[in-house]
Parts: sequence; C-alpha cells; structure tokens
Amino acid sequence: MRVVREQAGRAAALDAADELRAKRAEFVLDTPDEPDGTVYLDGNSLGALPRTVAPRLAAVVEREWGLLRIRGWREAGWWGAPERVGDRIGRLVGAGPGRIVVGDSTSVNVFKAVVAAARLAGEGRDEILVDAGTFPTDGYITASAARMTGRLLRSVPAPELAGAVGDRTAVVLVNHVDYRTGRLHDLPAVTAAAHAAGARVVWDVCHSAGALPVGLDAHDADFAVGCTYKYLNGGPGAPAFLYLRPGLQPRFDSPLPGWNSHADPFGMAPVHVPADGAARGRVGTPEILSLLALEAALEVWDGVDLAAVRAKSLALTDFFLHCVEEYVPRGRVTCLTPVPHGERGSQVSLRCEAAAAVMKELAARDIVGDFRPPDVLRFGFAPLYTSFTDAERAARALAGVLGR
Amino acid sequence: MRVVREQAGRAAALDAADELRAKRAEFVLDTPDEPDGTVYLDGNSLGALPRTVAPRLAAVVEREWGLLRIRGWREAGWWGAPERVGDRIGRLVGAGPGRIVVGDSTSVNVFKAVVAAARLAGEGRDEILVDAGTFPTDGYITASAARMTGRLLRSVPAPELAGAVGDRTAVVLVNHVDYRTGRLHDLPAVTAAAHAAGARVVWDVCHSAGALPVGLDAHDADFAVGCTYKYLNGGPGAPAFLYLRPGLQPRFDSPLPGWNSHADPFGMAPVHVPADGAARGRVGTPEILSLLALEAALEVWDGVDLAAVRAKSLALTDFFLHCVEEYVPRGRVTCLTPVPHGERGSQVSLRCEAAAAVMKELAARDIVGDFRPPDVLRFGFAPLYTSFTDAERAARALAGVLGR
Repeated sequence: MRVVREQAGRAAALDAADELRAKRAEFVLDTPDEPDGTVYLDGNSLGALPRTVAPRLAAVVEREWGLLRIRGWREAGWWGAPERVGDRIGRLVGAGPGRIVVGDSTSVNVFKAVVAAARLAGEGRDEILVDAGTFPTDGYITASAARMTGRLLRSVPAPELAGAVGDRTAVVLVNHVDYRTGRLHDLPAVTAAAHAAGARVVWDVCHSAGALPVGLDAHDADFAVGCTYKYLNGGPGAPAFLYLRPGLQPRFDSPLPGWNSHADPFGMAPVHVPADGAARGRVGTPEILSLLALEAALEVWDGVDLAAVRAKSLALTDFFLHCVEEYVPRGRVTCLTPVPHGERGSQVSLRCEAAAAVMKELAARDIVGDFRPPDVLRFGFAPLYTSFTDAERAARALAGVLGR
Repeated sequence: MRVVREQAGRAAALDAADELRAKRAEFVLDTPDEPDGTVYLDGNSLGALPRTVAPRLAAVVEREWGLLRIRGWREAGWWGAPERVGDRIGRLVGAGPGRIVVGDSTSVNVFKAVVAAARLAGEGRDEILVDAGTFPTDGYITASAARMTGRLLRSVPAPELAGAVGDRTAVVLVNHVDYRTGRLHDLPAVTAAAHAAGARVVWDVCHSAGALPVGLDAHDADFAVGCTYKYLNGGPGAPAFLYLRPGLQPRFDSPLPGWNSHADPFGMAPVHVPADGAARGRVGTPEILSLLALEAALEVWDGVDLAAVRAKSLALTDFFLHCVEEYVPRGRVTCLTPVPHGERGSQVSLRCEAAAAVMKELAARDIVGDFRPPDVLRFGFAPLYTSFTDAERAARALAGVLGR
C-alpha cells in the first residue's frame, strides 16, 4: 500500500504541474454517467469527444444543410473544407499551408500516394518496399498499388529500411509509429536514405499526428497519409489526410482523378485536367458532416504547443512504465515499446499471456485499452486529456488483474 | 392571368390528390425563415434535410462517440453500418439483402467496380466503353481504370452502346439517367446486350436511386454505384454505395483491398484475404457520422412504394413541362429531356440562352434549380417533397424571367 500511496501522490503532483491540464475539460470525460471517470487509454484507436463538436455539427445540419441546402457548398464554405481543414492539420504535423488535403480513408490515401510515388520513379525501379510491421491495410493497399504499377513488393523491417533501399526501389512506405509496438521510426533518416537512393518515401503518420512533432516539411517527406480519429479526435471514421510535398504537387499523377481534383470542377469537361496544389489529392465529393465534425474537433488544438504535447506524452509513458514496474509482479508482462525516448511514440505495448482476457478484465474495472493479436496489451496516452492519475490507476488495475 | 389561375388550380388539385403528400412534412421545408417556402428543385444535387437526421446525429455524437467511445464499433453497431445501410438502400434500387455496401465516394466506387469488372474479362478484351454523356467523374475514373488495367477507353453515346459492345469489350460503364439531359437509359437492354457480348456492365444510378424503380437484381446488373445525397437525402457528401451481383461477389477482385474488406479484419494478418459478400467492397474505416446521418435520412422511405414515387415523378415533370409550355414565350427554351416516359428520369432540363444568368434570376425569386454548362437549366423533382404547386410556381417564375 505504501508503494501505491507514493505513486498516487506522485500522479497528483504531476497532474497539478501539467501545463496541458486544462485541456481535459474540453473533452467529454468524467461525465455524470461515469462519476469516477473511466480511464480511457484507447485514444490511439478513437479519440475522446471534444465539446466543440456537438454544437457545430448541429448547426451544420440544421442551419447549413437544412436552410442553405445546395448553397451550403459556397455560402457555408463546404467546398473548400478539405484544404482548409488540411491547413489546420498542417500546423500539427509540420506542414505549411497548401500541402494537406483531407478526405477519403487512410487506405484510399495510401493508394493515391504509393501509386503516384511509383509513377514518379523510372521504369527501371521495379520494387516497392514496405515496413514489415506496417498497419495491415497499408500493406494490403501497397500490394495492390505494386500489382497495378507493375512493381514487386518487398517487406523489410523498418529499422533495416534505410539500408535496404537501393537503385531498384521506386517507393518506400513506412509507418512513423508502429501501431503494435509503439516504436517510433526515424523519419529524417529513412527519408534521407530513400532520397539518396533516388526513391520516394510515403509516411503513414496515423499514430504520430497529434502525439508528437512530425516535421513533414522540415524533413522533406515526399508524401504522407494520416488518420484524424486517433490523437486528432475527429470522431469515428473521420476522414484521413494526404500530404503532398510542394515540389511534387505539379507531378502528382493520381490514380483516382475524381471531379473534385479537376482544375475547373464545375466546368464538367470530358477530360480531366488536374488542379494545382493539394486539391490534386481530392477525389469525389467529401463527406461534409464527418469533415466539419473534424474541423470543430481540431479547435481544441488552438494555441497548443506540440513540444509540450511531446514532453507530456513521454512523461506519461515513462510514469506508466514506472508504475507497471512498481506494481506488476515481475515476469508477468514484457514491454514491447522502446525505452529510449527517441524511439517511442505515445503508447505503451505490453506483451502478456492471455492478453485478450486480461484486457477484458481491465475493461470490467473501467480501464479501456486494447488488445492486438496475438498477445499485446496496448495503452494509448493522449496528452491533451490523459492524466498521470489515469496512468497510475491503469497500472494498478493491471497489477490487480495479473496478481490474481 | 386566366392561364395562371387554371394551372395553379390544377396544381392545388394534384397536390390534394397526391398520395405521397404527407411526406413533405418529414423534411425541413417551409420553415419559419421561409414563410412562403423556397421552391427547391435541386434535390437532384442535394436532397433536402429529413427531420430524422438532427436528433439521430446528436445521439450518435453525444451518447455513442461521447460515452461509448471505442465500444461504439460493437455496441452501437457502427461496424456493420455499411452493410446494414446498404440493405436499406437495396429495397429502393431493387437489390436483395447482402448486395450493397455503403462507403467512399461515387468516384472511388466507380474505380472499384470498373477495375474489378475489367479483371473478370479475358485479356483479349482490350476496351472499356463509357457512355459519352457520362457525369464527368465517371469518365475520369474509368480512364484511370482503363490505364491501370491496360485497356483502351472508348466513349460511345449511350443509345448506341448496345450496338457498340462486342468481343473486344471488357466493361461498359453507363449512367442510368444522364445528369445533364435527364434522359433515362435502357438498363435492361444495355445489360442484356453487354452480357450477350460477354462483357460486364457497371451502372451509375446516382440520378435514378430514389427517383424511380431501378431493378438491379431483376435485370442482372453486374455492378452498380450510386449516390445518396441526391434523391436519397443523405446530406452533403453522404457516402456512396456499391452494388455487387451475388454471383460475382466471390470473384470481386478489388483494387482497394483495405482492412475493412478482410475476412478477419481484426486478425491483423499481413496478407489480405477478402471477406465474403458485399463487405468485399469495403475499403478503410467508414466515416460513421456521415453514414449514420444517411441511415437516419433513409427512414423517411419506410413504407414508401417506388411505383408511387415513379408515378408522381412523371406526373410532376409532365405538369411542369405543361406549365412551361403554357407560360413561357415560344422559342425561349428547348426541352432536352425526352417526352416519352420510358426515357425520362426525374428532372427537366431546358436549353436556354444566357442560362447561367437566368438561373441566378430564378434564385432571386426563390426558385432553386441549377445551371449546367454551357446552356442548360436543370430542375429536379424529388417526389417525396416536391409539390405540384412548386412546379407551377417555378414555371411561372421562369416565364417571368424570360418574359422580360
């Protein structure tokens, strides 16, 4: 009990000193239905609901769709939302205005990016590399892109990618943070290695956007795709985003040249002439309700410094790991997430026997994380709303489950 | 004035006898802000707001996302929504359960369908036909599908397609209703001709779904794509749908095999194994807020007979054409929409000098239709909420504008 008192006290002190602490109140957490507050450590799957969303979405439905109807496209700014929301995300991933467009799913954006990147490569570059630990859909879609552009697909562990890329490589697809282990891959180094070999690199920043500084512009990423329903809290299935490096935009040859990417979309011309800028990454009509819910959700980021987010994220995962070490009987879990800060995203993954059943037990104790087959417990730490008290409670509950 | 009194009286009588009349009250029309009611004849671009949507969407945000968070995928039924909503649409387009999946844009679904259809054809079938009057995005995307499957694209006027399809044809893409002219193409005949030649046919039913009986199952359509924000009133950019003929489902080889189309999506396996059934047409995570708004919108169709919808649609367009003939000075407009019922969708397109300016003038008189370049005025008739009085008022306003 002394150990628990110590760590609980430390959690309270860390929370009191947390400069992002006030952000938590901007989310629907600690509701009247949950007086003690569920400990929600699954924001890396689906971010919590920002309080900005419900009123905005009600206004979009009732005032914009309901009363403006078709005029909403111009008068309510629906038409420009993919680029406008893209610019808003840009600040969070280190991309200047005009580089990001929002719409479609991550999978569809991986297809656009990998095909377009392959088309930029010479015919002699006959292979596409994908990181071996990729989130599955990226692998499936990259395989399709390889098949449709006549390339071979080669799976390489991410830490070996910089050495594997060569003069046969057209494209490298890498996940910035491994969804399973929480390992942060070296975006600057892999990008530089790919470029040195004459290849293009597509980054999947689903598990880093909103969790840490990404620096897409600074590190010369070619293309990137990302998700907005995890750390960006855009809501279930919120639209994904696509980053197009400015210098490559005029050569971005999309496999999905829908009418929204036309230079004159309302000209209804029979031949596609691609738009300039990030709009070239658009396809069909964007799902406006989901997109504007995301826009409202992004308001919680106003004035937030990504360096503070990263500092808190690392402090949270450090503290959680410390509590696990203090509480959980030795040998019951193995940490898959790297200890060095430079290799860690914003989650902690613990390998554990009977992990699926353990996660169920945790849920029964109001601790929400998730299970990834075959044996991984995943705990996501969303710096805008996760508290140190949450981390301590989760570790304590885990010890309770594993101690039995 | 006698003519106007006569037609206005006829409109009132037709409205009084309209068996779908009560449906109008289920939409946000004739609001306090618009005491006389805007005449909204642009439901073929964006359907009016059904009153079911706002409360449902508020509940999805506040109760499901807000309180269930990640558990919403199972406990609120988010995961199965693409197929569940697909079945609901199925009844409206003559498709049995398990044949339609909702998600992505029309453009993305055209890509899936045309590529998959081309893959079903033998290598010797080296051309893809597209109807020459297609909505532009279908043409752009079909060109991309042709390029990526090594086929030539040939554009053929829709009435000539049945004669043009031959043993070189892999796929035919046809719009059921021409978006510009409102011409209804012969789905049974073109489908039969394509099949007789050994080709597959992809129907775009964007402008017929919810406006008339489509009969996808009855007429052996191979694949179809459709939009839900026009006559189905799903909201701005509401997700599109994809129909997969049951016999072809096991051979549907998607170019976008995202994780949502995996037989075991949460198994996180490195190799894609396609799901059975319509789920094979899924890609990434669906945009749940837009999708569930659509689901709520579809409730207004409960108990509605598509034959009654079609009968009213034809009566509305007949009556509008009659009023135009009575009111508008001869020679000022030419009707592009076919007069025979069997060739008419649910819109009336009038060719007119200075059409863009005329449509602006109409808008100033609270008549909302749309302009399609270079010289077309489009008036859409949504049988669930458009009244005969609307039709008469629109024709009268048009005469007022053109009489000046």
